[in-house]
Amino acid sequence: MNRSNRDPVDRSIVAGSDFLQLNILDAPVGGRSAWLAQQLRLAIEDRRLPIGSKLPATRVLAAELRVSRGVVTEAYQRLIEDGHAAGHRRNGTIVVAAPTAPTAPAQAPSAAAPSPGGLFAALPGPDVFDRMRAAPARIDLSPGTPDLAAFPRAAWMRAERAALASLSTSGLGYGDPRGTPALRHAIANWLARYRAIRADPDGILIVSGTAQTLSLLGRVLRDDGVPAVAVEDPGSLGARQHLRHQGLDTPPVPVDSQGARIDVLRDMAARAVLLTPAHQFPTGVVLSGARRRELMSWASESDGLIIEDDYDAEHRYDRPPVPALRSVLPHHVCYAGSVSKLLAPALRIGWVLAPPKYRDALVDAKRFADLGNAALPQQVLARLMESGQMERQLRLLRTRHCRRRDAMVDAITAHLPGAVVHGAAAGLHLMITFDAEFDDTELAAAALACGVKVHPLSWHSQGARLPGVVLGYAASTPAAISEGVAVLGEVLPSLS
Amino acid sequence: MNRSNRDPVDRSIVAGSDFLQLNILDAPVGGRSAWLAQQLRLAIEDRRLPIGSKLPATRVLAAELRVSRGVVTEAYQRLIEDGHAAGHRRNGTIVVAAPTAPTAPAQAPSAAAPSPGGLFAALPGPDVFDRMRAAPARIDLSPGTPDLAAFPRAAWMRAERAALASLSTSGLGYGDPRGTPALRHAIANWLARYRAIRADPDGILIVSGTAQTLSLLGRVLRDDGVPAVAVEDPGSLGARQHLRHQGLDTPPVPVDSQGARIDVLRDMAARAVLLTPAHQFPTGVVLSGARRRELMSWASESDGLIIEDDYDAEHRYDRPPVPALRSVLPHHVCYAGSVSKLLAPALRIGWVLAPPKYRDALVDAKRFADLGNAALPQQVLARLMESGQMERQLRLLRTRHCRRRDAMVDAITAHLPGAVVHGAAAGLHLMITFDAEFDDTELAAAALACGVKVHPLSWHSQGARLPGVVLGYAASTPAAISEGVAVLGEVLPSLS
Repeated sequence: MNRSNRDPVDRSIVAGSDFLQLNILDAPVGGRSAWLAQQLRLAIEDRRLPIGSKLPATRVLAAELRVSRGVVTEAYQRLIEDGHAAGHRRNGTIVVAAPTAPTAPAQAPSAAAPSPGGLFAALPGPDVFDRMRAAPARIDLSPGTPDLAAFPRAAWMRAERAALASLSTSGLGYGDPRGTPALRHAIANWLARYRAIRADPDGILIVSGTAQTLSLLGRVLRDDGVPAVAVEDPGSLGARQHLRHQGLDTPPVPVDSQGARIDVLRDMAARAVLLTPAHQFPTGVVLSGARRRELMSWASESDGLIIEDDYDAEHRYDRPPVPALRSVLPHHVCYAGSVSKLLAPALRIGWVLAPPKYRDALVDAKRFADLGNAALPQQVLARLMESGQMERQLRLLRTRHCRRRDAMVDAITAHLPGAVVHGAAAGLHLMITFDAEFDDTELAAAALACGVKVHPLSWHSQGARLPGVVLGYAASTPAAISEGVAVLGEVLPSLS
Repeated sequence: MNRSNRDPVDRSIVAGSDFLQLNILDAPVGGRSAWLAQQLRLAIEDRRLPIGSKLPATRVLAAELRVSRGVVTEAYQRLIEDGHAAGHRRNGTIVVAAPTAPTAPAQAPSAAAPSPGGLFAALPGPDVFDRMRAAPARIDLSPGTPDLAAFPRAAWMRAERAALASLSTSGLGYGDPRGTPALRHAIANWLARYRAIRADPDGILIVSGTAQTLSLLGRVLRDDGVPAVAVEDPGSLGARQHLRHQGLDTPPVPVDSQGARIDVLRDMAARAVLLTPAHQFPTGVVLSGARRRELMSWASESDGLIIEDDYDAEHRYDRPPVPALRSVLPHHVCYAGSVSKLLAPALRIGWVLAPPKYRDALVDAKRFADLGNAALPQQVLARLMESGQMERQLRLLRTRHCRRRDAMVDAITAHLPGAVVHGAAAGLHLMITFDAEFDDTELAAAALACGVKVHPLSWHSQGARLPGVVLGYAASTPAAISEGVAVLGEVLPSLS
């Protein structure tokens, strides 16, 4: 087979794996998608796959390579994410751009000498994301972690002693996969008080954090024939990766100053959407009243499912948080919460309130995943919640986070005068954007080279947008925050 | 379409969903397989699907019903398990028997008045299995739980205090999905000492028990194109259900007095097998030296994967446990252990040592499942292991369990003179069989009606075999054990 190198090219051209000369035996197990994506990038680069050509149908290429279709879908998704290809539901996947520089597999960041260009050049796969998390940084302004120094160690020990003393022998055996009744009861009270949600404890499922919620729900939705969960754009990269791992597409719904664009959601005929309505990640926008009403119509008219990731709703500084969507739409909302932003991510405890139609399937998914969360930490948490200790913790965190937020805003004013600050009224992070043209991954890489870790906004974006960074302030001292932002101010001029 | 009711019937007849008049909208979400299986049973019962006819191809019926293929596969599997159909890999699934009585969906056992015939009439789906687990019983002789009254509460509290005092602030954040280094190090030492396994702590993955190991590994194998994991027969029903939930077939490998029949494994051309070599569940057989050698040849010749479920290997009463297969075959064995039989199932902590080719994929699966186990209990367990507390616990359990095992053997001799005892030299349970003809599920149901819970052997069997029960002794006092076995002796005569 020969292929024309000239543009305009024929969109009907479909490449086959024979033409690409792919040999799956060259691929490492567990890294086949990454390998395949890289082979396709090379083929695009040397024009074996010209711009405008169509990639083979996933089914066909999977059969030819003798891999599961998921491997191919994931590889195509990577090409779409890094801008080499575009997906057209009906027309397949089209090559849209050649790489601007020779591509190379993602490298682990080297603490000694990170290379700003290479390190973040591609959208991070789980590997880079994870390595970046593990990369040593003097000052870590990654979003998503509360003030861990405020963790109530003494109260935890007291509650654990009491829990262990009163735990029955059978409580040490295999338990209810939904979680211990005491914690489900305590969470029902918490949700009633802080999120205006009336919940039956029997309808609450305890999970290992929102990551597990997305994993279990992804499986349930796929089994129900739902092929995709629409996600906010910008929106959490981690959430997107979790849904993808379950074989779900994640078409983007743009976010504007009122929150997610429900009109776009409606047009894409999605059956499910993942939202952060109380405090959108990463923009910090609150879903407006008009949009909430639009969303409610969409859900009831199309029997749509809303996954409400209520990750940091309790942390508002200006006014009480808006009620959860779940409180008004229990039959269409799958509500996900956790203690990761209230106590510590390391506890790996979260909760899900599924709509009735998915409730049993979700419990089954949890049972088959791990037979249920560990019992003792659930008992401890139940005691912290019922004793008022969690409320005290929340008040303490609000005060401390607010001070750190102020320190960050001051530092941005001082060191990044051209930056626009978004979402500073709530949460554990804020977002800044620049009205300029540069690659924000390079800004993040340059900062990391100076020991300061931040998330480039483009990591959390599927479409094109202004360059920016997402800055967590909750887990760092005011002094560290000032120093970290100052470093951003120092490295920024070299990029524009 | 019309169908003949006469036998012999045409094996080429293939039913379609139009003929069956199935409407998937009638099925509850999450219960579609059960619903479909029930509809097919009804169709077999009223001869719409005559004996000898072929069920539609899973792909075809799934498309017609607009459900995922897994739903149909699972429904067919249920029919195969309850004897309505037989699977012939090439020739599809054939109806082989009509139900002997009108079928009904599995009922939850009623503590007040369980009906022996109805309660366990079908092989238990997860529902019945779970309900049975939750069913109140005065004396619970279910296998799989150690003496929970021996849980070292005081030592746990001391270790937790020390762990919490020394835990860094960043240790409360998102950690390494593989687990905390301290625990991986402690487990490496434990495995070297008790299981003759030399393990690099970096190659150990901490998980939420062996249930999660099977779930994660099932996913990894499926992604690698492995369609089935052969399992021991008899073998753990729970393990089989976990693998099935991940879409894997579980063809049976018979177990005889030397352990799993490796010649059968070789003939079935399986690529992976789940084994309990140190103390086969439920028979208690130790895999013989000859079989170990056969197994090693199979693994290296066919590049086969052995999943070694080392669930209770430390609990031997007669001699030191045999070394783990992992110790001699690190490149072909995925080793799974947990603290469920050493401390308590409620801790939900286990470990996996994957062969090199699956190591990264398994870490990824864990990351996407829940981002890793909770940090604090890992630190506590590491301290218990490194301080010698776990060894003391194991010695204590061995003494207590041995006494309970003796009480059970004595009670069987006194109350069940016709029973043959198997596997009493190790572990937390033993198995008894009867050289008679009766339905052991009825024996279990009759015992439960008298407040005594046991597992019928047929729950853990795929093929036909002698009736029997699996009796856990570790979690009950000698008095409760004697009373429970006496109840079995009382209800047994009514069945033969």
